[in-house]
Amino acid sequence: MRYGVLGTGMVGQEIATKLAALGNEVCMGSRGQDNKQAKAWVERMGKNGKTGTFAEAARFGDVLVNCTQGSHSLEALRTLDKNDVSGKILIDVANPLDASRGMPPILSICNSDSLGESIQREFPEAKVVKALNTVNCRVMTDPKRVPGEHDLFICGNDQAAKKAVTTLLREFGWKSIIDLGDITSARATEQLMPIWLRLWGNLGTADFNFRIVRA
Amino acid sequence: MRYGVLGTGMVGQEIATKLAALGNEVCMGSRGQDNKQAKAWVERMGKNGKTGTFAEAARFGDVLVNCTQGSHSLEALRTLDKNDVSGKILIDVANPLDASRGMPPILSICNSDSLGESIQREFPEAKVVKALNTVNCRVMTDPKRVPGEHDLFICGNDQAAKKAVTTLLREFGWKSIIDLGDITSARATEQLMPIWLRLWGNLGTADFNFRIVRA
Repeated sequence: MRYGVLGTGMVGQEIATKLAALGNEVCMGSRGQDNKQAKAWVERMGKNGKTGTFAEAARFGDVLVNCTQGSHSLEALRTLDKNDVSGKILIDVANPLDASRGMPPILSICNSDSLGESIQREFPEAKVVKALNTVNCRVMTDPKRVPGEHDLFICGNDQAAKKAVTTLLREFGWKSIIDLGDITSARATEQLMPIWLRLWGNLGTADFNFRIVRA
Repeated sequence: MRYGVLGTGMVGQEIATKLAALGNEVCMGSRGQDNKQAKAWVERMGKNGKTGTFAEAARFGDVLVNCTQGSHSLEALRTLDKNDVSGKILIDVANPLDASRGMPPILSICNSDSLGESIQREFPEAKVVKALNTVNCRVMTDPKRVPGEHDLFICGNDQAAKKAVTTLLREFGWKSIIDLGDITSARATEQLMPIWLRLWGNLGTADFNFRIVRA
């Protein structure tokens, strides 16, 4: 499978590396064409790794993964040709964190809207699946870093797309995946950031996750 | 100990009943003086139960518990005499849920502020501790309804007040209580409502809770 991973930061690097390690061809997209992080990544990856602009990565991928910084994701995604997104699964991993007003960051969009929904509105023909945004990037691709049972949340409007993403997440090692429903549930998972950030400070490690315990 | 429980709904009834069962004197406060739910509760409780206005309950209690509907809590609390609140622990159990724009409710305040902080600002001399707002009211007073290990979150500016509330919560049966820091962390726990509400629909039971699993 061909993946277009948008974003060259820690999250993009983790996801792109995992996808390539699973035998996929991956194009890492960045704002400009001469992104040093993307080029260094391609050198490490060998034949399964490519780099290009956001638009080129979107054209390349059968499946797209938004790993751009959440507060700038819409701006980044607007550089794509809509024809390169239509009909494709777009996994949105980003959180719209805004640190411009101090730490911990607040959300630049929340409550009655979310980044996931905003992306779905911008690309109505895409199959947006919100996933992986509730754990640290190293846990995303290696859930065993957190011992025992813990849960990943996904949501999206397209059932088949969620099923395909679930299959991929199981390849990443995820065992318990809770489908929260349509893309409006991106509000729910993005709003886990405030407690996630405080727990991170409190626990002194990013290797933690939520488990839903029920009767 | 004397408690003033503000609010006569399901949450107020659960908390007031538990506090009375633990041997405390409890005054359940309501908007008007002739609240039927409060009077019926007093009849069931016998000598440990009293009823009055919000202001009378606040005067009565050594410790106050805000169980009013979160989107109207500030309005309700503004009927109290500030002298009856100053220096006291005020446990804020409410979530600022607003269902006026449809279901699931959104938050009437969130992200860069919270109900817990708003109450602390309104009563700077009170020791506001946010607690219990992340579980269903029956789980609040009987955490064993959810099997195994799961966590309760508290926050507030006053360490001694948090310690006293922690002692009370242990009497309720809570074993794992995570202190998230000062009252600004009320943002984090109140923003668990969007995922809590979706999980409630998804799981078909309110007997569930969050567990933080860590390495």
